[in-house]
Amino acid sequence: MPAGDEQRLAVIDLGSNSFRLVVFTARDGWWKRTDEIYEAVRIGEGLAATGELGEAGMARAQASMEVFAHFCRASGLEADEIDAVATSAIRDATNAREFLDRAEESSGLRVRVLPKEEEARYGYLAAVNSTTLSDGVMLDIGGGSMQLVHVERRLARELDSWPLGAVRVTERFLPDDKPAKAKQLRELRAFVAGALERAPWVRRSGSRIVGIGGTMRNLAAAAQREADIAEFGVQGFVLTRSALDDLVEELADLPPSERGEVPGIKPNRADIILGGALVVQAVMEEGGFEAIDVTEAGLREGVFFERFLRRGNGGEALFDDVRRASVVNLAAQYGMNPDLNPHVAHVGRLALELYDELAAAGLHPGENAERELLWAAAMLHDIGMTVDYDDHHKHSRYLVLNAGLPGFTQREVALIGQAVRYHRKGMPSLGPFDSIAEKGDEDRVNRMSALLRLAEDLERSRDQLVREAHVAIDDGTVRLDLVSDSEARVARWAAGREGDLFERAFGRELEVD
Amino acid sequence: MPAGDEQRLAVIDLGSNSFRLVVFTARDGWWKRTDEIYEAVRIGEGLAATGELGEAGMARAQASMEVFAHFCRASGLEADEIDAVATSAIRDATNAREFLDRAEESSGLRVRVLPKEEEARYGYLAAVNSTTLSDGVMLDIGGGSMQLVHVERRLARELDSWPLGAVRVTERFLPDDKPAKAKQLRELRAFVAGALERAPWVRRSGSRIVGIGGTMRNLAAAAQREADIAEFGVQGFVLTRSALDDLVEELADLPPSERGEVPGIKPNRADIILGGALVVQAVMEEGGFEAIDVTEAGLREGVFFERFLRRGNGGEALFDDVRRASVVNLAAQYGMNPDLNPHVAHVGRLALELYDELAAAGLHPGENAERELLWAAAMLHDIGMTVDYDDHHKHSRYLVLNAGLPGFTQREVALIGQAVRYHRKGMPSLGPFDSIAEKGDEDRVNRMSALLRLAEDLERSRDQLVREAHVAIDDGTVRLDLVSDSEARVARWAAGREGDLFERAFGRELEVD
Repeated sequence: MPAGDEQRLAVIDLGSNSFRLVVFTARDGWWKRTDEIYEAVRIGEGLAATGELGEAGMARAQASMEVFAHFCRASGLEADEIDAVATSAIRDATNAREFLDRAEESSGLRVRVLPKEEEARYGYLAAVNSTTLSDGVMLDIGGGSMQLVHVERRLARELDSWPLGAVRVTERFLPDDKPAKAKQLRELRAFVAGALERAPWVRRSGSRIVGIGGTMRNLAAAAQREADIAEFGVQGFVLTRSALDDLVEELADLPPSERGEVPGIKPNRADIILGGALVVQAVMEEGGFEAIDVTEAGLREGVFFERFLRRGNGGEALFDDVRRASVVNLAAQYGMNPDLNPHVAHVGRLALELYDELAAAGLHPGENAERELLWAAAMLHDIGMTVDYDDHHKHSRYLVLNAGLPGFTQREVALIGQAVRYHRKGMPSLGPFDSIAEKGDEDRVNRMSALLRLAEDLERSRDQLVREAHVAIDDGTVRLDLVSDSEARVARWAAGREGDLFERAFGRELEVD
Repeated sequence: MPAGDEQRLAVIDLGSNSFRLVVFTARDGWWKRTDEIYEAVRIGEGLAATGELGEAGMARAQASMEVFAHFCRASGLEADEIDAVATSAIRDATNAREFLDRAEESSGLRVRVLPKEEEARYGYLAAVNSTTLSDGVMLDIGGGSMQLVHVERRLARELDSWPLGAVRVTERFLPDDKPAKAKQLRELRAFVAGALERAPWVRRSGSRIVGIGGTMRNLAAAAQREADIAEFGVQGFVLTRSALDDLVEELADLPPSERGEVPGIKPNRADIILGGALVVQAVMEEGGFEAIDVTEAGLREGVFFERFLRRGNGGEALFDDVRRASVVNLAAQYGMNPDLNPHVAHVGRLALELYDELAAAGLHPGENAERELLWAAAMLHDIGMTVDYDDHHKHSRYLVLNAGLPGFTQREVALIGQAVRYHRKGMPSLGPFDSIAEKGDEDRVNRMSALLRLAEDLERSRDQLVREAHVAIDDGTVRLDLVSDSEARVARWAAGREGDLFERAFGRELEVD
C-alpha cells in the first residue's frame, strides 16, 4: 500500500451471538481498528431446537443491520469498502435466505454467507498474523460454530468447522438455569471428542494452539483476574489447562444467571460461557495441549488482513514478521515510523550498537530476545509525546501496554513498557509486573533502560550528530568513544550523567571520552 | 489561523536556572507543545556575588545553544519560526553581551534579551490564557527574577519585576549547606516585603493570585503529594497558604542537599526550592492571599500565545473563553473537533437538550457549571479511540487527565474524566477522586454519565438520525420522545437499556417511546 493513501474497510460480522461492525483504517504505514459498533443480537437463539432463526432475533438483526448501514453512509464508506459476512447461524438456518433477502432489502447491505472453510481460513489469517504461531492449531470458537485449522510453517494445511459454538452447545447440553451436573459436563466433552474423530491431525499437530473469539477472550480475562495479573488486555495471554479447569469448575457450580459474577466474565456472556469453556477444554484434552495462547484478533481481522496483505502470485496474506510489523505499526500510529523518522531509527541503531559491543566484551549475555525488546523499546520510547510532553515516558508505556503488540507475550510487552518508562529518568524496575516476570528480567530492564537513555543522550540534538558509539574496556572501566563530524559536547555531557545507571546495569564505571 | 495550515514556533528560553527549547505546533484547530529539550544550565550561578556570568555556566550555556540550533536545523525550522529569549541572568550580568556575541556566533541563534516589562507580560499572557483569572495578580518566579502583574478584566494594568528569583535569593540569603535558621527566613521575607513597597497595588488587587514558573510547579507537586491527591499534573492545583507554610517549615529543617528527599521536590531544584518558596510566601503575606492557583503555562507559552492569538487593532492576545478553547483544543488533537465532527457535536447537543428539559421538569438542580462539564465530557468522550477501540472510555479518561484542561480546576477535570469513563458501561462513581470532590459530585457524575450514555445510544448510527430528544413526565415516569425522519429502532432499543442508570441518576423510571 502506498504511503499517504488511506484505505478503509468496514467488516460487518453477522455472528451467531453478536453482530459487529468494525472499521479498519490503514494509512502512512499503520493500520488499526478505528471504529466499532457492537450489538448483542443473539440471532442464533433457539436455532438448535428448531433449525430456524427466531422472529425476535431476526427483528433485532434487521434493526442492527440498518444501523450499520446508516453508519456506513454517515462515514462516507463506498460499497467496495464494506464487507458484510455471515457465519454459522445464518449459514445453517433453514429460513436464512428469506431473512437475508428482507434484511438486505431494508438495509441495502449485501451479505456474503461464508462457507465453513472460508470462515476457518479467516480465523487462521487472524491467528498467524497476530501471534508467532508457525506450527500447530488455530481454534476459533464462536456462538454457532467452532473452527480448527492445522498450521504448518505458517500455512493452513487442513481447515474444518463443527457446529460446536458456545450458544449451540449451551442450548443442546446445558439448557436449564441451574448449576451444571457432572453428567452434563461429561456428555458435552464426549460429544466434542467424538466430533473431533474426523480430524486426527489435531492430535499430531505439535504442542502449540492459538485460540480466538469472544469466548476465548473472556476466559482469558477471567483467568487473568484469578491470577491477579496486572491487566492490559488479553493479547498474548497464555491460558493454561489447569487455569481453565479451575474456571470450568467454578462456573459449573453456579447457575448460568450467576456466572457473570465470576470476576472477568462478562454479564452478557454469562449464560453461554460454560458451554464455550467446555468445548475449549475438550479440544485441549484431545490434542494434548497444556496451554492455549490467546489473541484478540479474530474473523474480522482475518477479513481485513486478506485484503490489506494480499500478495501477487497467490502468496498467502501474511506479515513477513509479525513482531516487527506490530512495533512498526504502533510507532507509525504516533508519527514515529522508523522508516520516516531518522531520530527514532538512530536511537535504535546506537542502542543496539552499544548492546552488541558490551555483549562482545562479556559484560552481559547478549540474548537475541532481549536485543529485539531493546529495539522495540527504542522505536516506541517517544510515542507518548502525543499525549503530553510532560511525563511522556509514562504516556509511552501506557500506549504500549494498552494498544498492545501482537506477537509478543505479555511479559515481553511489559519489559518493553518498563524500558520505555525509564528512558528519561527514574530508577528502572519491573514496576507492577513482578508476577509475570522471569528470572533475570530485572537485569534486562536495567540494561535496556540504561542503553536507551544513553542512546537518547547521544541523539540529544536529534540530527544524528553522533554517528557511531563504541565501547572500550580500560582497566575495568568502560570508555565510550563517539564518532561525530563536529564536537558533540552536549552529547558527551549528557551521557556522562548516566554513570550510576550504567554501573547498576553493567557493573562497570562509565567514562565518556 | 486557517485550518490545515501548520504553524510551528520554537521558543528558546534562556533562563537563569535552566535553558529550554519548546516547539509549539498549531494545526487543524489544535495547538500543543510537540517537542522539548531541557538543560539545567544554571547560567545564573554566582551572579549574585560577582554581577557576572561565570565561566563554567557560560560554557554549559553555549553548548546547550549549539544543541538547540542543531535540533532546529534537524527539524527544518526556519529562522522566523525560532524565538530565542533571555531573561534576568543574561539581562543583568555585566558580561552578558560578550557571552551572547560568542554564543550567537557559534550557534547561529539570535537572542532577544527581554526587558523586564516584556518578561512580565509573557507571564501575564500565559496566566490569563491558561486560567480563568480575570481580576487579581500574576506571580512569575524564575531563577533570576520575579514578576508581578496586576490584572483587571483580563488586561495587564501594571507590570513589574524584581531580582528575586529562586537562584538569586538563595545565593544571597541561604548560601550555606545547612538547615535554614529562623533569622535567615525572616530576613529573606522582610527583604521581599520591602521590595514590594513600590507596588502597593499588590495589596488591593483582589483575592485571586495565579502562580507560574518551575518553582511554583514544584511546590504544587510537593503539596499534592503531602495531601495524597490522585496526581495528574499541577495544572489548576490550588496551593493554600497553610500548605505552603507547612512545606516551608519542612524544607527549612533540612540542609539543601536533603531537600530533594521531600516527596515531590525535584532533586535538581532541591537547593533553590526553599528560597523560591519564601518569596512566594512573602508575596502571599503582603497581598493577603489565602491560596495561589497554579498553572503549568509560563513564559514560553506566553511567547507562543502572543504570536498564535495575535489580533488586529492592537487587541490583546487572549482566548475569548479559556475553558471552551481548552476543550476544543483537546478534542481537535484527537480528530474530534466539534466544528468538523458532526457526531461529537450532536451527542453534545442531545445530552444538553435532555439536561435542560430534565432540569425544567424539576428532576435536578440544573447548574450552569455542571452543564458545562457535561458539554466538555460530550466533546471528549471518544478521544481514547486513538489508543485502542477496546476500553476507549478508559483511554479517554487517561487522555483528559494527563493532557489536562487549562481553565478547569482539578476537581472539574476529574468530574469530566469520570463522566467520560462511564459513557459506555460500568456503574458511575467518583473513582480515585473522592478526596478532591465536593458535596453532590457523586450525583453530578451519575447525571452526566447517564445523559452521555443516552445521547450516545441515540446517536448509535452516527448520522444524526435522531434529530431531537425530548422528555415528558407521565405519572412519575419520564418518557423519552424522539424526533427522527425515519424509524429509529436501534436508538430506541439501545436507550431502553439505560433504565437502571437513569433511575439511579434522576430517581424516575425511564420509558422510551
